Amino acid sequence: MNIKYGMQDTHIALAHGNGGRFMRELIEEVFARHLCNPLLNVQTDAACVPWTAGELLLSTDGFTVQPLEFPGGNIGSLAVHGTVNDLAVAGAVPRYLTLNAFIEEGLEIKQLERIVQSLAEAAQAVGVVVVAGDTKVVRRGEGGGLYLATTGVGVKCAQATLGLAQIQVGDKLLVSGSVGDHGIAVMLAREQFGLRGDLASDSASVLPLAQAIWHLPGVRFMRDPTRGGLATVAHEIAQATGWGIRLNQPAIPIRDPVLSVCEILGYDPLFLACEGRIVAVVAAAQAKAALVAWQALPQGQAAAIVGEVLNTHEQVSLVTALGGERLLEELEEDPLPRIC
Amino acid sequence: MNIKYGMQDTHIALAHGNGGRFMRELIEEVFARHLCNPLLNVQTDAACVPWTAGELLLSTDGFTVQPLEFPGGNIGSLAVHGTVNDLAVAGAVPRYLTLNAFIEEGLEIKQLERIVQSLAEAAQAVGVVVVAGDTKVVRRGEGGGLYLATTGVGVKCAQATLGLAQIQVGDKLLVSGSVGDHGIAVMLAREQFGLRGDLASDSASVLPLAQAIWHLPGVRFMRDPTRGGLATVAHEIAQATGWGIRLNQPAIPIRDPVLSVCEILGYDPLFLACEGRIVAVVAAAQAKAALVAWQALPQGQAAAIVGEVLNTHEQVSLVTALGGERLLEELEEDPLPRIC
Repeated sequence: MNIKYGMQDTHIALAHGNGGRFMRELIEEVFARHLCNPLLNVQTDAACVPWTAGELLLSTDGFTVQPLEFPGGNIGSLAVHGTVNDLAVAGAVPRYLTLNAFIEEGLEIKQLERIVQSLAEAAQAVGVVVVAGDTKVVRRGEGGGLYLATTGVGVKCAQATLGLAQIQVGDKLLVSGSVGDHGIAVMLAREQFGLRGDLASDSASVLPLAQAIWHLPGVRFMRDPTRGGLATVAHEIAQATGWGIRLNQPAIPIRDPVLSVCEILGYDPLFLACEGRIVAVVAAAQAKAALVAWQALPQGQAAAIVGEVLNTHEQVSLVTALGGERLLEELEEDPLPRIC
Repeated sequence: MNIKYGMQDTHIALAHGNGGRFMRELIEEVFARHLCNPLLNVQTDAACVPWTAGELLLSTDGFTVQPLEFPGGNIGSLAVHGTVNDLAVAGAVPRYLTLNAFIEEGLEIKQLERIVQSLAEAAQAVGVVVVAGDTKVVRRGEGGGLYLATTGVGVKCAQATLGLAQIQVGDKLLVSGSVGDHGIAVMLAREQFGLRGDLASDSASVLPLAQAIWHLPGVRFMRDPTRGGLATVAHEIAQATGWGIRLNQPAIPIRDPVLSVCEILGYDPLFLACEGRIVAVVAAAQAKAALVAWQALPQGQAAAIVGEVLNTHEQVSLVTALGGERLLEELEEDPLPRIC
């Protein structure tokens, strides 16, 4: 490819954001080329999408991950998965995405293209189309390379009412796979610790996992444990219900290399972000059925029942391998900024 | 108000973005408090909104204006108007908004509150509700204070098909009010020129203006002339149709103080952003009716017929007060970065 953007032909310039010729060319050649679909028209202010019936679900997310590319994904695929996953855990099939890009002056256009291409591939794999977008260019030093914001529109499919209000004492907490992979993979990609591993982010769509259980009786609530990880979801449940959550440490799936890095650096994997997992709360009698449904999927083989809702006052505790029990405090200091 | 965010209680800290307690408190106390509505639930991943019938329109926009507050508005009200206006010119009544905030570490929380409050007031005035949101905190120096991204969902109301493809030779170009006000107001607010005026941004919802003409016969196309201004909309029309656009300089409404500042500093007001105007293309026979409809509204009193579509090859020209005609080139260098 040999596109001339004028002024600077390999890196983003402020003029790529001014509404004029360079912006038009950047949008046409980088964004529209990869994201093209019948509903995306770069000449219109708004996209008109078909909508027959059913409840409309909306979700939105911002992405500031550093570095922009990491083992297992990049900010583009992450943006798709993050927004799709918020809709999936709410019981919706994602249909449409809108995309905002805040691009820093000086970003290499080849890198931007790789990211947009990855975003387009992730969207296609999930079956969503990007129907509207906007780009802004900010001055060198002010934008961390690239920030993305995506909004997803989905159609409600789960028949059950899912929500924190459905949770009851005695319910079980399930997690669909190992925790902490995304957080550790991004941290290692920063190279600031001189550590290297074969670790990759778990960034992926959780839609198949959500669909596998959302029709089952007894499924009360689902959430994707991103910022703050599994422990933070447990705290959200405790705060919303006023009950206690007890997590069972030996049952929580954590990959050995993640555990090793956490031990060396002093991170608690329960607080690290996942980007392709679900935490579900399921009635005790149906928890096994939900677990079996997850384990039948390639991405759910490590799924486990990891905790339960107790009739105690609002708190989150962890039972250790040795049988001890300690409180897990709510996250305050940020262990890993810019993780998603 | 005396909220303790911990760590730093007057300015944003990185921990306000980590998914933990400080983030929850910031969202509850600053965002949810001002934006509260029955559809906004900060405990859910996705908002479920009612949708009965009609075509769904989606639009999205990013905002990076500097300074964050300026005469006539701030980045919060601007974000609402920008997204609402994209829907309005597409013939839709806006219903729902999603909001992304990229907040820079160190931003004064009082300033963030003023902006969110202004955003909430603008949304209420227009009749849209913010149903989903997300916040990210980026390191000091990396975020320009605050970037916002909003996505709007609207229901198509205009019965006519509006679009660049509807434009015909002989059609007239109308503008709903004076041009350049937003661009000049923001530039003066930067104080870098030592100039001061009573200028204010025109930032406002154009929904009443759009509704006043979208049912009229002969209305082909509407656009809000933001980045790149009136001249850039003329170029978009020329490129899409392959025809020439001739603008009539004496007819273009420009306020005297805007003209004065432009003359002193060498800006062309035709390329400066408006944030509360519409450019419409209307069949010649119905142009007067559309003009009358606009002039009957408080925000349309300065509306004018400012140009026409010619059967010449693709170009934009300007007829001056002295009767001369010169070409208006497409914008390349950015006259005023970070204007919206």
